[in-house]
Amino acid sequence: MNGHPAPSARTRVRRLPDRGHYDAGTIAAIVDAASVCTVAFQHEGAVHALPTIHWRDGEHLYIHGAKASRMLKALTAGDACVTLCMVDGLVYARSAFHHSMNYRSVVIYGRFEIIDDPDEKTRRLRPLIEKFATGRWDELRPMTLKELNATSVLRIPLSEASAKIRNAGVKDDDEDMQWPVWAGVVPIESKRGTPLTDPDSVVREIPYQQLK
Amino acid sequence: MNGHPAPSARTRVRRLPDRGHYDAGTIAAIVDAASVCTVAFQHEGAVHALPTIHWRDGEHLYIHGAKASRMLKALTAGDACVTLCMVDGLVYARSAFHHSMNYRSVVIYGRFEIIDDPDEKTRRLRPLIEKFATGRWDELRPMTLKELNATSVLRIPLSEASAKIRNAGVKDDDEDMQWPVWAGVVPIESKRGTPLTDPDSVVREIPYQQLK
Repeated sequence: MNGHPAPSARTRVRRLPDRGHYDAGTIAAIVDAASVCTVAFQHEGAVHALPTIHWRDGEHLYIHGAKASRMLKALTAGDACVTLCMVDGLVYARSAFHHSMNYRSVVIYGRFEIIDDPDEKTRRLRPLIEKFATGRWDELRPMTLKELNATSVLRIPLSEASAKIRNAGVKDDDEDMQWPVWAGVVPIESKRGTPLTDPDSVVREIPYQQLK
Repeated sequence: MNGHPAPSARTRVRRLPDRGHYDAGTIAAIVDAASVCTVAFQHEGAVHALPTIHWRDGEHLYIHGAKASRMLKALTAGDACVTLCMVDGLVYARSAFHHSMNYRSVVIYGRFEIIDDPDEKTRRLRPLIEKFATGRWDELRPMTLKELNATSVLRIPLSEASAKIRNAGVKDDDEDMQWPVWAGVVPIESKRGTPLTDPDSVVREIPYQQLK
């Protein structure tokens, strides 16, 4: 992927601009680390936003859903704004004003396009499964044409996107440094727990290294 | 808080309606458990969405930010849509089609109002600090008028909101139950890590029970 030379008027980070990042590698890494995004769109003059699972393949973010859904129909009619955010820590300062969070977020602007061709659709769904278990797609009962037809796959380019990252310690005003209150950072970690094998699963041992 | 008798046209869960919840207690619990929401709004005909920290006080969701920010100015000019979502597990089915996630999400529609009075603003900011460390507000260096004036506090009522929850195991088609692939649920847990005391912190012991 190529680096983005400059932010657009929509993606330029205006508040605390030193937290802004526009290079494709940084944006891709945050998109990959998140499980869900929020898709905001306009429909009949009103604003709507819905959380949904996403995945990345090359220079696009993909979403999918039931073909009949209101969101997917409205998405190709106008521009959308996709956001995702992960909280990495809580920052406890000596003043309320300097409390903060460590986080990684991405905002994407653009127009979704629908993947219509069933073969391409199958190919584009594969990395969604592989994101959560490498090697699993080929082990699954293959998708039927009926299932494929009931599923919409959409993608939005990552070309107009910005990332915002805070990854730092406590920043207080000089005159507050001696204030007698605990100051520090509490990390927040998202962790996979112990897998719960389905009671009816024929295979009892989980084969994926990343889930062990 | 009172239960909501029925969803509005905007908040009724249309896809998989059995996952929809409209009672105030369920919605409040999900709002409280999440650290960040996404605020979607329209500005000069375009859709925008930004992740931001939030807190709840009674029947409102609160956000805050720098007074000069574009988002906060645009928010009171039209309706907004606030979403939040926590992923609780990954559901590995025998078919790609039945893969799913366990999650708790909330979507809120409405208009933000600005809290202008400095005294009320101070009172409304308190639960944000207390959300992450009970008892901390009174220990902090008190807010200055300059800081208060630089901070906008806004709130949106939780009266037009819906929750969507999936909390279940694997659901496959009967004819797929013998398919030789591992099926199960991998829980996702968001956990606080070991607090990192600021090197210059006068107080070295963390006093909050919830962070220990």
